[in-house]
Amino acid sequence: MNLLKVAIAGSTGYLGEELIRLLIRHPGIELVCVTSRGNAGQRLEEVFPKFQGHKYSTLKFAASEPGQIVLSGAQVAFLALPHGAAAPFARALLEAGVRVIDLSADFRIKDAAVYREFYGQEHPAPELLRESVYGIPELYRAQLRKAQLVASAGCYPTSVILPLHPLLEERLIDPASIVVASMSGVSGAGRNVTAEYLYVECNEKARPYAVPKHRHLAEIEQELSVAAGERVMINFTPHLIPVTRGILSTIYAMPRAGVAPEAITEALEEAYGEEVFIRLQGEKGTVELKNLTYSNFLDIAWRHDPRTGRVILMSAEDNLVKGGSGQAVQNLNVMCGWAEPTAL
Amino acid sequence: MNLLKVAIAGSTGYLGEELIRLLIRHPGIELVCVTSRGNAGQRLEEVFPKFQGHKYSTLKFAASEPGQIVLSGAQVAFLALPHGAAAPFARALLEAGVRVIDLSADFRIKDAAVYREFYGQEHPAPELLRESVYGIPELYRAQLRKAQLVASAGCYPTSVILPLHPLLEERLIDPASIVVASMSGVSGAGRNVTAEYLYVECNEKARPYAVPKHRHLAEIEQELSVAAGERVMINFTPHLIPVTRGILSTIYAMPRAGVAPEAITEALEEAYGEEVFIRLQGEKGTVELKNLTYSNFLDIAWRHDPRTGRVILMSAEDNLVKGGSGQAVQNLNVMCGWAEPTAL
Amino acid sequence: MNLLKVAIAGSTGYLGEELIRLLIRHPGIELVCVTSRGNAGQRLEEVFPKFQGHKYSTLKFAASEPGQIVLSGAQVAFLALPHGAAAPFARALLEAGVRVIDLSADFRIKDAAVYREFYGQEHPAPELLRESVYGIPELYRAQLRKAQLVASAGCYPTSVILPLHPLLEERLIDPASIVVASMSGVSGAGRNVTAEYLYVECNEKARPYAVPKHRHLAEIEQELSVAAGERVMINFTPHLIPVTRGILSTIYAMPRAGVAPEAITEALEEAYGEEVFIRLQGEKGTVELKNLTYSNFLDIAWRHDPRTGRVILMSAEDNLVKGGSGQAVQNLNVMCGWAEPTAL
Amino acid sequence: MNLLKVAIAGSTGYLGEELIRLLIRHPGIELVCVTSRGNAGQRLEEVFPKFQGHKYSTLKFAASEPGQIVLSGAQVAFLALPHGAAAPFARALLEAGVRVIDLSADFRIKDAAVYREFYGQEHPAPELLRESVYGIPELYRAQLRKAQLVASAGCYPTSVILPLHPLLEERLIDPASIVVASMSGVSGAGRNVTAEYLYVECNEKARPYAVPKHRHLAEIEQELSVAAGERVMINFTPHLIPVTRGILSTIYAMPRAGVAPEAITEALEEAYGEEVFIRLQGEKGTVELKNLTYSNFLDIAWRHDPRTGRVILMSAEDNLVKGGSGQAVQNLNVMCGWAEPTAL
Repeated sequence: MNLLKVAIAGSTGYLGEELIRLLIRHPGIELVCVTSRGNAGQRLEEVFPKFQGHKYSTLKFAASEPGQIVLSGAQVAFLALPHGAAAPFARALLEAGVRVIDLSADFRIKDAAVYREFYGQEHPAPELLRESVYGIPELYRAQLRKAQLVASAGCYPTSVILPLHPLLEERLIDPASIVVASMSGVSGAGRNVTAEYLYVECNEKARPYAVPKHRHLAEIEQELSVAAGERVMINFTPHLIPVTRGILSTIYAMPRAGVAPEAITEALEEAYGEEVFIRLQGEKGTVELKNLTYSNFLDIAWRHDPRTGRVILMSAEDNLVKGGSGQAVQNLNVMCGWAEPTAL
Repeated sequence: MNLLKVAIAGSTGYLGEELIRLLIRHPGIELVCVTSRGNAGQRLEEVFPKFQGHKYSTLKFAASEPGQIVLSGAQVAFLALPHGAAAPFARALLEAGVRVIDLSADFRIKDAAVYREFYGQEHPAPELLRESVYGIPELYRAQLRKAQLVASAGCYPTSVILPLHPLLEERLIDPASIVVASMSGVSGAGRNVTAEYLYVECNEKARPYAVPKHRHLAEIEQELSVAAGERVMINFTPHLIPVTRGILSTIYAMPRAGVAPEAITEALEEAYGEEVFIRLQGEKGTVELKNLTYSNFLDIAWRHDPRTGRVILMSAEDNLVKGGSGQAVQNLNVMCGWAEPTAL
Repeated sequence: MNLLKVAIAGSTGYLGEELIRLLIRHPGIELVCVTSRGNAGQRLEEVFPKFQGHKYSTLKFAASEPGQIVLSGAQVAFLALPHGAAAPFARALLEAGVRVIDLSADFRIKDAAVYREFYGQEHPAPELLRESVYGIPELYRAQLRKAQLVASAGCYPTSVILPLHPLLEERLIDPASIVVASMSGVSGAGRNVTAEYLYVECNEKARPYAVPKHRHLAEIEQELSVAAGERVMINFTPHLIPVTRGILSTIYAMPRAGVAPEAITEALEEAYGEEVFIRLQGEKGTVELKNLTYSNFLDIAWRHDPRTGRVILMSAEDNLVKGGSGQAVQNLNVMCGWAEPTAL
Repeated sequence: MNLLKVAIAGSTGYLGEELIRLLIRHPGIELVCVTSRGNAGQRLEEVFPKFQGHKYSTLKFAASEPGQIVLSGAQVAFLALPHGAAAPFARALLEAGVRVIDLSADFRIKDAAVYREFYGQEHPAPELLRESVYGIPELYRAQLRKAQLVASAGCYPTSVILPLHPLLEERLIDPASIVVASMSGVSGAGRNVTAEYLYVECNEKARPYAVPKHRHLAEIEQELSVAAGERVMINFTPHLIPVTRGILSTIYAMPRAGVAPEAITEALEEAYGEEVFIRLQGEKGTVELKNLTYSNFLDIAWRHDPRTGRVILMSAEDNLVKGGSGQAVQNLNVMCGWAEPTAL
């Protein structure tokens, strides 16, 4: 079998590390290049002792340059780089004919003005925004098949967009009524060496942050607006909780007048009943992190509250897998026509 | 100085244990009786090695009967008993002239029908419901001073009622718009020996539960309705997170038409600016568990979101202190005319 | 390919759950029977929501009887049952021609008198003790190939026996000088619903226990004595630490007179240099749980202290994998002539 | 009452923060100066929101210079500064007549050559070494009463020296046989912003480190040698475990020939039976972090193992209290003739 040559740029953050963990067991690919700003020249097993004894353990980190990836012969490159740093990589790689799966936010926001509003800088490659495909296979599977540039979706957005999408598309809920409270594990902050992410600071603590305008709101509202066919603005409050992995989102919305509770269930089952990575837990089920960490599943449960009339949607995922590197690999599988669960 | 004689019924749960920790340093009281169903006859330090070397370490647990408390000469009794078990204790103690501070839910719900709806049983002492005072000093200080029976408020309710109370009282927000997501540490479940509270089950996990109708909703809505002067129904979703202590509540509400954002700030400052245990963190501040575990503080921060128009209130407390035993001791201090921070 | 039919008795403890996780991805087997005392009749995915969407998710638990396993046509059975309960299962299954891999302690102790001393009861099937093979492939690979009854080694013993075995076999260290301090995650206690394993009791806590005579001492000393060719008695202190998975052992021993430090390194490299699941980290390397949780690796690092003359060995493993279910699957692979890393 | 004026240099590390927490409730002192390199000019409550609403919350951090402390009129200064930085402060303060309680290692090692060996630099103030008193009140109470310079003992050393001291002093154990395994919470590393102390790196992990020659070995061996009346060298292995606070030490030693097990018990009871902060748990008791975090207790339990002849000592303390700031306050109380439990 002819293996697809794959590269990872920015391999030493948590998303890069998780990509390596997943790709080690992918039968269709060969990892030919991993890049790192800080660890170029070192072997994978030196930087990550956990990969000792695994395939690729002696692969050496290349310098963090697009040219290194092109030289390696990679046909697809994952970019696990900081926001702003990914765009120039993507441009250079696309010009060299390398397909790109970007895990940063650089190509998720279709509107450069919205990017500027939320990220505080000019978009570094606005000409590519039209070309990029938002990387949630359950929503954009057809476009992903031939995409050259995939903007793999973020962790919070995946957990919020997927439960709401069919309800907005079917006009079952009032877009102005949406309120979301999410909780994320600390790996969501990346390997970010600042005092606030020290063990002693995070342990035994929970806190809301970035209220009321977290950056991920931009892509959440963009995709919800596409679904609703109108401009959607919501409240979204992220909270940091002391777990390593996982995102839990609790979502409130008011059904439109005349919508029966069963319509919610039907819309979700219609949309996701056949999806391999979305597990519908129904109106009596629940979601919890332990059921899906280290897996690519997104679980969704829901309730109708007859007292207030609201519907409550609850979703859970592993932020590093379905909310990050697992979804990126799922995108790869779609792009290559492979079975979606491959390596997942 | 003449010390007040104090008893604790149900001293081996987490709230009982925390009461002991606080009362050890209370200069105005003498702990004369602690009762326990399972540990009668044992010394305090045998059951709780952490209390070795402290005052009262050799005090022996009495059997869990009101008569034991009356015999001890106690003038005030804290009841840290399960729901349903507290009411008969309270009745017997009140008849014997002992003032009662009940930490269970038995006397929090003024309406026996609501108690039945939420607790699934007939109220065990409905005749006492009128007499009891809901135990949040910031709201019922005057009534508490001469109360014979105090229904010390619950953990979630304290964190939800206090931020919303002045906004409803001042008619600043729409009661129908209130949505709450709360997170609690595992001690909130009590010393409950069931599989779901095992370390391995709770560690690295978060989950919503009791959706959409947690029992604490009854007392939350009761007190919010009093404040609003109308029947208030809200959505409240509790989540279990892997910390030992602490509750965090994130609350959404829509201001009434024409209410300026500053009015929210003014109402909170007016209501709580002089309170010793409520720390207003303002429109730029934040709340987090680490700042107040082991203390009796409730922190409140808030934001106005100009995009959606909603106000977001965030509150935090230690569920065993301001959300439990600390508030009970604060109630005691009010009842006795002592400085509220005594022992806190 | 003809799949081997496999059963698991006692599938709802942590070791049984982990066996299912590993066997799901084993290409050589078909899981035909899982038994449970408490959940017979329920589907796998009902008891373990995490297995929804996986192979075998609708397999139903059978009653916990050997006959159920025989009926299922299983050719190999894993026993993840409590000590004492496994032996009668093993006897019945062996008589029916089913090969048995027992994860309990029932067949690890070769001497029924030692079993009685450490487990406080008569051995339930002493006639099978001679037949059983101690299940550490790195030490008993040849015997395991044709074993009918494997006593898969325990978690602490694996982490202590493997580092010391070659040093004792080569007579490099004084057997009387061995002292061990081990730390284990809470899953080592099993799904044991008692107050001491509640989240609130274990979180933020560490403690030694079973000092000086933990049950695992029996099998540790048995295997060290075999290696040394003389009776070995050691000190072994287990500690409980607040992690879900993992065992760390720090081992002290005094080299015999005239033994050069390099001899330690040589003996370890000679013994394990070719082993796929033992990663020698050397005299400068270290061991830590994060590098190997969820994997079947055992890591070993060591130091010679010129000041005191002692050698310090440090080992780490996942107690549920190399210290439990992973090693059991490795034993299966050896018994069936499959590549040892299959499914691991 | 005339309050003693007290200063803290280096108030923003974990030991400084803990000193503030304890001194807030000390009735004999007035905190007149806190210094900080990074936060000079800010109020205490700005840097530590947890101190909002407490005494001293509006005290401003002064620049980190001895002159600031002298100017403040402080009569006693705690130094919670990094090793090497404390010595020049101490010299300047002593010259100005300020008594000094140093929490760094600068004055713990009496021999400047040993300091150089373990800390890799020349001692910054060797002339003061003779004057300093090692700050464990249970061992040096008389000298502490009039000390001008106290080298408050370190966290690991306190947990190791106290259990062994009476046994060595009474010549009950063989000094060459001592082996120690200790576990520490992450706050022991200080507010050290490096990748290895990030939440995600420490959570669910345990690891040994600094094997075989941790810096604290120098002061441990110094004090054990004083007790034994001969040069003592031991093995000491620290481990990092995922808790915020606490140190647990498990200590092995071989009794000298002819020493009866009861002699161990007698020596410990003789030495510490009257000590208010040492709780002897005896030959059947145990030690665990939960019993003493946030308190100044050191718990000691022990066992004699008739199989190997060794004695096993187990000790536990809060590394920030008895192993740090609590012990420093206890030293203050001794220096001032106050009751030792004051503020503790």
